[in-house]
Amino acid sequence: MTQGSTICALSTAPGVGGIAVIRISGSEAFAITDKIFRPTNGVSVVEQPAYTLSYGKIIKGNEPLDEVIVGVFRSPHSFTGEDTVEISCHGSIYIQQEILQLLITGGCQLAKAGEFTQRAFLNGKMDLSQAEAVADLITSQSVAAHRLAMNQMRGGFSKELQTLRSQLLHFVSLMELELDFGEEDVEFADRNELIRLANDIQVIIARLAHSFGVGNVMKNGVPVVIVGETNAGKSTLLNLLLNEEKAIVSEIHGTTRDAIEDVISIQGQIFRFIDTAGIRSAGDEIEKIGIKRTFQKIEQASIVLWMIDTTHFSKEIEYIADKIVPKTKDKKLIIVFNKIDKISPEEQLILEEEFLPHVPAERIYLSAKYKKNTEKLEAALLKAANLPELNANDVIVTNLRHYEALTKALESIERVQNGLKDNLSGDFIAQDIRECMHYLGEITGEITADEVLGSIFGKFCIGK
Amino acid sequence: MTQGSTICALSTAPGVGGIAVIRISGSEAFAITDKIFRPTNGVSVVEQPAYTLSYGKIIKGNEPLDEVIVGVFRSPHSFTGEDTVEISCHGSIYIQQEILQLLITGGCQLAKAGEFTQRAFLNGKMDLSQAEAVADLITSQSVAAHRLAMNQMRGGFSKELQTLRSQLLHFVSLMELELDFGEEDVEFADRNELIRLANDIQVIIARLAHSFGVGNVMKNGVPVVIVGETNAGKSTLLNLLLNEEKAIVSEIHGTTRDAIEDVISIQGQIFRFIDTAGIRSAGDEIEKIGIKRTFQKIEQASIVLWMIDTTHFSKEIEYIADKIVPKTKDKKLIIVFNKIDKISPEEQLILEEEFLPHVPAERIYLSAKYKKNTEKLEAALLKAANLPELNANDVIVTNLRHYEALTKALESIERVQNGLKDNLSGDFIAQDIRECMHYLGEITGEITADEVLGSIFGKFCIGK
Repeated sequence: MTQGSTICALSTAPGVGGIAVIRISGSEAFAITDKIFRPTNGVSVVEQPAYTLSYGKIIKGNEPLDEVIVGVFRSPHSFTGEDTVEISCHGSIYIQQEILQLLITGGCQLAKAGEFTQRAFLNGKMDLSQAEAVADLITSQSVAAHRLAMNQMRGGFSKELQTLRSQLLHFVSLMELELDFGEEDVEFADRNELIRLANDIQVIIARLAHSFGVGNVMKNGVPVVIVGETNAGKSTLLNLLLNEEKAIVSEIHGTTRDAIEDVISIQGQIFRFIDTAGIRSAGDEIEKIGIKRTFQKIEQASIVLWMIDTTHFSKEIEYIADKIVPKTKDKKLIIVFNKIDKISPEEQLILEEEFLPHVPAERIYLSAKYKKNTEKLEAALLKAANLPELNANDVIVTNLRHYEALTKALESIERVQNGLKDNLSGDFIAQDIRECMHYLGEITGEITADEVLGSIFGKFCIGK
Repeated sequence: MTQGSTICALSTAPGVGGIAVIRISGSEAFAITDKIFRPTNGVSVVEQPAYTLSYGKIIKGNEPLDEVIVGVFRSPHSFTGEDTVEISCHGSIYIQQEILQLLITGGCQLAKAGEFTQRAFLNGKMDLSQAEAVADLITSQSVAAHRLAMNQMRGGFSKELQTLRSQLLHFVSLMELELDFGEEDVEFADRNELIRLANDIQVIIARLAHSFGVGNVMKNGVPVVIVGETNAGKSTLLNLLLNEEKAIVSEIHGTTRDAIEDVISIQGQIFRFIDTAGIRSAGDEIEKIGIKRTFQKIEQASIVLWMIDTTHFSKEIEYIADKIVPKTKDKKLIIVFNKIDKISPEEQLILEEEFLPHVPAERIYLSAKYKKNTEKLEAALLKAANLPELNANDVIVTNLRHYEALTKALESIERVQNGLKDNLSGDFIAQDIRECMHYLGEITGEITADEVLGSIFGKFCIGK
């Protein structure tokens, strides 16, 4: 169980730390490590039992380079399935580089991004969707994204796909048996039974494909676009939610010309905030481009935050009400009245009663400057996101590649359904079933081209 | 062998990596880990043999948080000397934080900076100078700095200090015995013998104290100041050596007003480059401050690089020759003639023969723009640095705290020498010997106040 060369890489985060871990995987992992490691107990790495740790020195020439701990994993009981060594060294960049250099001189190749996980896949330790989940797990930033990645890594999705594929295999064998004996006019499979089977499969594939809507938002964040007239306090609000000064806050009207996107976590749910240029009825050329971009961003968002400066009701408000509100019909609109610290309670009451009463929107009365009612805004965002509670075993698709394969599988199974309904010839139907199986197989990697693998594992970090 | 609470911290570099390692040390390390770890083989951490690895899941509530490897070290055979667990988890920041949170909920305290190494010191696993070497090892950027830290960590310096202290103890006991029997007019120690002993000790302490000059330069870099008229190409040269655009290169005269300091490694030797404002005989107010700073920087440097624009011999050259050259008497002066691509070979020959022939300096004919003769400049810098070859067992002091203690010890032993010479009373001499021992003990931590420990370990990174 080995894939050519023996590879090595720094597996911990780049930079200086107390310790760093260098991983080596492949048939020569033990022999190469033995060239540079002098264990205190005198037992060579080749002889070191699996799952044990050994203390000693890394030697460069005749000089000690570092004092390290060497952990040994023996094929097939390792992450990659190959013989694997993990060297835990002091975390200086100098030491990390020197040890990697010694390993390369000793016969290792520097691992490409994701190569350890790719080997785990190639050696049958996990399927492709599980391998992809490893990368998702490492980059997950929220409870939800983490849980989705864990579920996928543990193989819930893979099992569901396996079940589907074995149902499809049974299905196609029935169809092909019928074809073989077709001239004898034997019907092996009851057509109604087949229709029921196709429907069952279609329901599951459709559910998986549709789960991507939720899965994508959970993993990458709910897109929220902030719109409003210039100087309404959009950047200030963003900074308040971000707790840092990423967007430029300025007293000058129209400073935010480019859409700045930032990601924040509210109670473990990721939101992707898109700041936009301020809307102006009579702006300069750049402003017009900004406004055009604003409309594009609204298209991509599921929540629209309309910021209004309550101290300054200009004719732009009308312009926005005319231009923005019609574009938010199938989205959640939250109207945020900012700078309420500057108006009287009576004025606020008038606002609550008389401002666009027929527009269906959540309304928040905020002082971004004094951080008043931000918690109400956060609650409104969570409510508008409307994401389901996630259980440990829920299978939800979060990967665009999987979604695309599922969409194609769905089309295939729907052709099967139509074929059965229209009483089409068995070989057409069998062809569509096989196609459906093919697309499902692409997800788990049973059917995968090399370039697909390259693009998947190339997105990993080095050392995993 | 335990220091109160059980502590935990991320020991690998902060940020996202393939894996991350969380270290737990203290009497409850195994029990607390058992609360959150479900090993696949069913053997609890408490029962897990020393120096072994165990695969399993970290559980939060009833849900798996991550799949991890747990390594076990049993007291006193660990880095800290205490029971220690290392959890190797997936390297997402989310997972790192969650596991640390679970450990804290389970009864751990988050380790302070350097607390693991501090415990190793307090538990007698290493002396204070070795503990300080751990921090140096982690931050070392060059071959020399790394080797010095390794030597110190391995205890060469500690052994030398121990020898000195036992010699001093023998010395003082001879003196005090003499005092006890003083009235009987017995001389236990031959005074000439004592003088020889004091001299031997003084020689060793002086050598160690003086080694700081070299040690400090090897660890922190050789200070090189770049001076010259404005627009001579100083910033371009710095960038060339740095391979990046840290200093602002500009066509406008006098742009580099603040001293920019940067560190580069030439053949494993660190140089600390200090760029300065250009020298102008008639500059504005800011320029004058810059020139004043230039002279201050020359004071601190051991190498002075004088950049001359060969296409533009202004009267500033004379000004510099008058002002700079006298200040470089006890330093190495390298004159760099820049922009030689713009002059003819004949012009260069005249330069070589006629430019300040009586000024003792290395002369380099360079084109910073076309990267010509930079290797000659690098060679000249290495030669000017004049650092000794370092052997694996050389004891060289690199730590300012050690240097200060050695300087005080040196003063004490010199008082002993003078006292013996002047035939002072034995109790005065014994007092000075004890003082000398005290200062040496401060280095290894045999005599150390709590606030000193706090300041030493506070400089470590978290997790070490």
